[in-house]
Amino acid sequence: MGVVIPIEENREPQASVEPLVGLTREDMGKVNALILSKTGSDVEMIPEVAKHLIDSGGKRLRPMLTLAAAALCGYEGDHHITLAASVEFMHTATLLHDDVVDESDMRRGKQAARMVWGNQASVLVGDFLLGQAFRMMVDAGSMGALDVLSTASMVIAEGEVMQLSVAQSMETTEDDYLAVIRAKTAALFSAAAEVGPILADSDKPTRDAFRSFGVNLGLAFQLVDDALDYGGSKADLGKNVGDDFYEGKVTLPVLLAYRRGSEEERKFWRTAMESDSADSAALAQAMELLAKHGAITDTVARARHYGEIARDALAPLPASEQKRALLDVVEFCISRVS
Amino acid sequence: MGVVIPIEENREPQASVEPLVGLTREDMGKVNALILSKTGSDVEMIPEVAKHLIDSGGKRLRPMLTLAAAALCGYEGDHHITLAASVEFMHTATLLHDDVVDESDMRRGKQAARMVWGNQASVLVGDFLLGQAFRMMVDAGSMGALDVLSTASMVIAEGEVMQLSVAQSMETTEDDYLAVIRAKTAALFSAAAEVGPILADSDKPTRDAFRSFGVNLGLAFQLVDDALDYGGSKADLGKNVGDDFYEGKVTLPVLLAYRRGSEEERKFWRTAMESDSADSAALAQAMELLAKHGAITDTVARARHYGEIARDALAPLPASEQKRALLDVVEFCISRVS
Repeated sequence: MGVVIPIEENREPQASVEPLVGLTREDMGKVNALILSKTGSDVEMIPEVAKHLIDSGGKRLRPMLTLAAAALCGYEGDHHITLAASVEFMHTATLLHDDVVDESDMRRGKQAARMVWGNQASVLVGDFLLGQAFRMMVDAGSMGALDVLSTASMVIAEGEVMQLSVAQSMETTEDDYLAVIRAKTAALFSAAAEVGPILADSDKPTRDAFRSFGVNLGLAFQLVDDALDYGGSKADLGKNVGDDFYEGKVTLPVLLAYRRGSEEERKFWRTAMESDSADSAALAQAMELLAKHGAITDTVARARHYGEIARDALAPLPASEQKRALLDVVEFCISRVS
Repeated sequence: MGVVIPIEENREPQASVEPLVGLTREDMGKVNALILSKTGSDVEMIPEVAKHLIDSGGKRLRPMLTLAAAALCGYEGDHHITLAASVEFMHTATLLHDDVVDESDMRRGKQAARMVWGNQASVLVGDFLLGQAFRMMVDAGSMGALDVLSTASMVIAEGEVMQLSVAQSMETTEDDYLAVIRAKTAALFSAAAEVGPILADSDKPTRDAFRSFGVNLGLAFQLVDDALDYGGSKADLGKNVGDDFYEGKVTLPVLLAYRRGSEEERKFWRTAMESDSADSAALAQAMELLAKHGAITDTVARARHYGEIARDALAPLPASEQKRALLDVVEFCISRVS
């Protein structure tokens, strides 16, 4: 009798986050409990603001990456719970600071925290969560994980500053734009995935595989997000359609349409993105130009490219439920838009 | 022949930071070089903003505490340089975020960074420096130091939030106010001092001594700062006289004058501190009430009380140049005002 390969093993990845959610359900229960306990503070406003954001229904993709990666690598301790919660705190802190920097009104379909408690609270509660994230990393006791996550924390901020000073310009190249999102989004996906094998004391190729998986999944995720800003519905997104456009935030769809456009079209884009005057008529025209130049379709194609790299990064690893669930998540991220 | 006690040994502490500056000069040269190298980034704005703040001539008391404490405890490695630079980065990040939160125009006699580069850059460069601080702590390789500094980072943010929600009220008690400054100012002094003995692997009483020294020095320092805001000259301070008053920031001098004042005076304080209407005539009246109730003098007396505790915290430690220099610093901090 030959080796029995379960049928599921070779199936095409499905576009679903459900397998990952299912596999990490028990651990995510512990992560959520830890998150709640670690937002506790005698200073009333801290748990209020943190709860507002944490309850607002993000998918918690990043901590799930940490949990699945640790499990896939055979880790058997408890510190993956602590690090997964740290990762979510780092993410939440970034969101709070982002909203202040971008002057956003909405976040995941709710009022942004800064609209309810003010910019001051958003800056400071973000700082609190970041400090708490580092304390929890210390609790987990892994210097390797601390190294990866503290570097990510610095790189994320660097990416945000880069976005301020570089990516507002219509002349930004696709490469420059990628450098921004590689730092501001993909670095945390990458760190979240890599700390799993670090905890499990896996070999270097495995660590490298998860780092590469994370960074490419992060790039795909962000590019799809950029495309969704011009293509989804408000209810699906938890943000206003055209947010990026009205905020003058230059993303890949716009950069592609600009590069491919006529001189007249380029003038439109410069006016729309570099002034505060863009209205819904301008958005309608923008959507038309994006469609004319296939800018949304091609942004999604670029996302698919990074998704493929993410999948191949994990290819050498032995088959497992976790591996399949992670491959499904790549497909899921991309299929949100296409 | 008896034991020779150097005359210097028993001298009264002098009010000077110079002995500490002298003792740590060589190490501070290394700290400053490290600080410069670690603000480097391909993202141009980061070194610009960091340099603006770092060049603006703070005394670097906190990193000097780390260096002197490590030396006093007999530490012979290099990691005290790294941790001292981390401590200064944490402090600088806090200043950047504080200016945004307080909407300050000036910082150390120069325009605040947010006035030159905007709130966005101040938030994000602060985040960058904080991330870099944690990376450097990882480089130093001491989990104990990471524990103390990450806790401080969280407590500082907690103190700032507390200040938003509690200390704006005139009904704040002195105890509540102390809880705020214990968190937002004294926690970093304490951590800066404590990581010295941690690196040196000193015993618990020594660690405790430095922690107590740091926290009480920090309290004294902040109270003197509060008093100076109503008593120094602009050139001495690097901040505008009456800044706290105009910003409606309730500090101990005001709380004392308020508690000791008549109903009419209390009404004045409430109007002045809780509205945006305070002008220079109001400041003049405030100064008069502060003098009438001895509020400045007594704030300095309170500072002196914490200074004494700081000095006694170090009392059990054997005599050394470093010990004397640290005692001198307590005197120096208080004498800035009296």
